[in-house]
Amino acid sequence: MYSYDELYRIFSSHLKRQSFSNDPKELYEPIVYSISQCGKRLRPIFTLMACDLFHGDIEKALPQALAIELLHNFTLIHDDLMDQSPIRHGKETVFKKWNPKLAILAGDALFVLAYNYTVEAEVYQLPEVLKIFNKTALQACEGQQMDLNFEQRKNVSLDNYLEMIRLKTAVLFGASLKIGALIAGASEKNMQLIYDFGINVGMGFQLKDDLLDLYGSEEVFGKRTGQDILENKKTYLFLNALATADPKTKGILLDYFHEKKLSEEEKIQSFRKIFDELDIEKMTNDAICIYLDKGMEKLDAIELPEERKQPLRNLAQTMMDRKK
Amino acid sequence: MYSYDELYRIFSSHLKRQSFSNDPKELYEPIVYSISQCGKRLRPIFTLMACDLFHGDIEKALPQALAIELLHNFTLIHDDLMDQSPIRHGKETVFKKWNPKLAILAGDALFVLAYNYTVEAEVYQLPEVLKIFNKTALQACEGQQMDLNFEQRKNVSLDNYLEMIRLKTAVLFGASLKIGALIAGASEKNMQLIYDFGINVGMGFQLKDDLLDLYGSEEVFGKRTGQDILENKKTYLFLNALATADPKTKGILLDYFHEKKLSEEEKIQSFRKIFDELDIEKMTNDAICIYLDKGMEKLDAIELPEERKQPLRNLAQTMMDRKK
Repeated sequence: MYSYDELYRIFSSHLKRQSFSNDPKELYEPIVYSISQCGKRLRPIFTLMACDLFHGDIEKALPQALAIELLHNFTLIHDDLMDQSPIRHGKETVFKKWNPKLAILAGDALFVLAYNYTVEAEVYQLPEVLKIFNKTALQACEGQQMDLNFEQRKNVSLDNYLEMIRLKTAVLFGASLKIGALIAGASEKNMQLIYDFGINVGMGFQLKDDLLDLYGSEEVFGKRTGQDILENKKTYLFLNALATADPKTKGILLDYFHEKKLSEEEKIQSFRKIFDELDIEKMTNDAICIYLDKGMEKLDAIELPEERKQPLRNLAQTMMDRKK
Repeated sequence: MYSYDELYRIFSSHLKRQSFSNDPKELYEPIVYSISQCGKRLRPIFTLMACDLFHGDIEKALPQALAIELLHNFTLIHDDLMDQSPIRHGKETVFKKWNPKLAILAGDALFVLAYNYTVEAEVYQLPEVLKIFNKTALQACEGQQMDLNFEQRKNVSLDNYLEMIRLKTAVLFGASLKIGALIAGASEKNMQLIYDFGINVGMGFQLKDDLLDLYGSEEVFGKRTGQDILENKKTYLFLNALATADPKTKGILLDYFHEKKLSEEEKIQSFRKIFDELDIEKMTNDAICIYLDKGMEKLDAIELPEERKQPLRNLAQTMMDRKK
């Protein structure tokens, strides 16, 4: 069994051996820039871990892990442009460092490069790999569209929000694991179980993201907390506050989007005060625990010795415990 | 053998049987809008014709023809946004009718839908279909990037331009035909010949586009001529004029981009005068003929009875003779 650290090294060195530089250089520079950002590589490592779990050869899963990572990077480049996010991993995003046109085109090219890696699957597994890959990519688009819709919509329910993050974030975790399991020749039943594990871990992961934005330690988190409040984002925290507040507090929260009198710091503090009174931090932590537990139950149901599951369990736990 | 008209009907009715409507509707509306535009469907019909040429079952080529058409539509949506083109086929482009974010996202989703159709190939043909498809999609991105680069560059040569249109336009014609031939089980040699036929026809097709922009009949062409001049585009006409003009005329042409004194009509007329003096229309028509001839030679080299090649010959000829 490989640990997260071992797989991180294996994946990173495999990634380094790839060459993405080509002509015209204007197109490929942002691609190299984007995939060289040192993220945690959670998704490709999930692919390798799932392959390893089911006694697969992780060498055969490496192209698929790469495809998943490139797909992820493609969505980031386009989403950052649509969301006008200037910074990611402490560095300028592609549309900001270059320009919007290049972000569109480099994203498109990166998406094709992702498909180039999927084709490296064994021929008999290729249709199934592609079906999972296509479905996931389409769901990511649908999730992003829901997210864009929510900016305009007033009546976003918690269920709407959970469906949005399932599509935008969780399914890619599920697919990463399922493709790894597929490469290892896992059964349909086990592929579904590992997929569901990924969905639940992915849901918890996104809620943790929402939580850290306000309740993270600025020192550890590496950026100012409360950004979601300043950007009027309808996060899990905000929607839960809305769902549980009394009518008066709800009124204050609904005035949220038009608030102009308060300074940024005052706005964050006034919301934090309401969230604290409503115990939103605990509520969110509880939800994260429930998703983690559900995910672990799916892992339990896979009929393999407990020790084989340890790397996946550890990684899922680390994702929920993370401080940034 | 099927004629263009028959294949147009077959493809159109197959396209109508597909359902692209889904949730969130905001994402799928522009997709339905985009693929419902009544173009000539040249690329998918090439796929079907090439399949038919090599005695293939066109039913099996239909999903690939669809994939090609969706790929083409995806590139149009993103290119129109990057080029800020408000109108296509007499209708508003997606970014204009909706907004830039939606054009990015609907384009992405359409690209995934294209891949969904490629997967319908027989498993043993799927890797090869995908390799052609991926390579072509990547080249389309590279061509578009070169086109964007040319807007900034002063020293664009005719060769640079021809390479750009090869990547941006011609390879998709080549790939459409090659995939159709592949589905029919054509030999490597024949696949290469039909691909080269498509490249040459595609090159001629784009030069004809450049020509019609200035020399088309406004009535038949359906839009005002001279747009490329007003948009300072470095077309085949302009670059040829630059290459053949005397130093003084060249100077006038190079002042082109900064010209502000003349009215739009005066600008078009003054350029047309120079182009006419340099015989640019004939020069371009000659180049189109050369590409068409080269394409026909490739078709000649395919060892099949002449009658089987007739639909392809007719279509290629029609593309070059077109008035709009």
